[in-house]
Amino acid sequence: MKNLLIASTSTVHGSGYLAYLLPTLKAFFSQSETILFIPYARPGGISYNKYTEIAAKAFAKIDKKVVGIHQFSNPKEAIKNAQGIFTGGGNTFELVNQLYKNNVLLTLKQTLENGTPYLGTSAGSNICGVTMMNTNDMPIVYPPSFNTMSLIPFNINAHYLDPIEGSTHMGETRETRIKEYHVFNETSVLGLREGSWLEVKNEKITLRGNLTARLFQQNENPIELESGVEVKNMK
Amino acid sequence: MKNLLIASTSTVHGSGYLAYLLPTLKAFFSQSETILFIPYARPGGISYNKYTEIAAKAFAKIDKKVVGIHQFSNPKEAIKNAQGIFTGGGNTFELVNQLYKNNVLLTLKQTLENGTPYLGTSAGSNICGVTMMNTNDMPIVYPPSFNTMSLIPFNINAHYLDPIEGSTHMGETRETRIKEYHVFNETSVLGLREGSWLEVKNEKITLRGNLTARLFQQNENPIELESGVEVKNMK
Repeated sequence: MKNLLIASTSTVHGSGYLAYLLPTLKAFFSQSETILFIPYARPGGISYNKYTEIAAKAFAKIDKKVVGIHQFSNPKEAIKNAQGIFTGGGNTFELVNQLYKNNVLLTLKQTLENGTPYLGTSAGSNICGVTMMNTNDMPIVYPPSFNTMSLIPFNINAHYLDPIEGSTHMGETRETRIKEYHVFNETSVLGLREGSWLEVKNEKITLRGNLTARLFQQNENPIELESGVEVKNMK
Repeated sequence: MKNLLIASTSTVHGSGYLAYLLPTLKAFFSQSETILFIPYARPGGISYNKYTEIAAKAFAKIDKKVVGIHQFSNPKEAIKNAQGIFTGGGNTFELVNQLYKNNVLLTLKQTLENGTPYLGTSAGSNICGVTMMNTNDMPIVYPPSFNTMSLIPFNINAHYLDPIEGSTHMGETRETRIKEYHVFNETSVLGLREGSWLEVKNEKITLRGNLTARLFQQNENPIELESGVEVKNMK
């Protein structure tokens, strides 16, 4: 059994950290008194302690405690014993690098397959896919592999952005980049716009939030999925 | 001796492929009848043949022939014997992957250090830096290393984009991503806007084009370099 929330972003424009998700998180983590936070992605290079404080401040609003995985001498045990787990956003390369370096990627995967509730935002969502190959992040460190947890049978493109009409910029759009990916890879990609998330209950994956999401499958035209639909039959 | 043109982009908005650079290229490649083209970056997954045709069409306007490296049975010899070399843009991960797979990265570096004139655009410029860690591209393939040719003592961020004022998007800006990079890495980064290029003559590196470029050094505020200045004393 799996019990995951895979969110495009921690924060939507004009509101506080995790604010738009708090009502959902209150129900989702109803059985978890304390949340284990994985701060490895370090947005802006922030320290693990400071990042954990930010997460703790948000979760305090729904009466949850937060502890950082770096506060444990044995991170594997910390994951296995957690009542709930949250991996925040930042740089996906560094997040994946640290998950390998600390040798906890497989432990995290197995723990989540056994039902521990998990929230991922941005980079923390990317790692739920088959690989991290659809991150938008800069390759600022070289991780041992791009393979991630395969908790869902496709990849996530977090903070999905539609092409900007009338743009004079010649750099590739997000859609072009994902098309390039599909020249070399079969796995589908779900472009999750800011404010969208996936709810994963066992093998059932449902799109939540107010927006549609854009699904990219190899050799097919992208399609828009409506909020509330089940995401399935994915290559 | 080195003789390089390191350009942010092949194409500026509203003009044809390489058009803005052709007057410069005519003088730069005056001694080269035929240009060896490295199409490994495959923008949009285009075939090597088709990509080479695009390059050939542009260079025909200044009476140069273009041959693709994939047309040679021995790519190392093709590089060593070239009168001039051009590496086009596309996906930097795939470009670097193929340079390693074909075992030509070192040959290319040595050949360029010996003076063969070289044009790089976008991904083809990124590989002139110390590492490819400041690419904007998606990690669609896993290269054996992020290390590149170190022909210049800093990295390139091609297609550099200034933060968009008033944007409601919560994904990181280019500047934020480069700041994250400097948490983990010392090497400086030059943000080259579309229409800018570097002219490298031996160890002298000069900013060309009409725009300023943005230089990011570890633990310092970014600075704007004026066109025409020498880029030097880089960490």
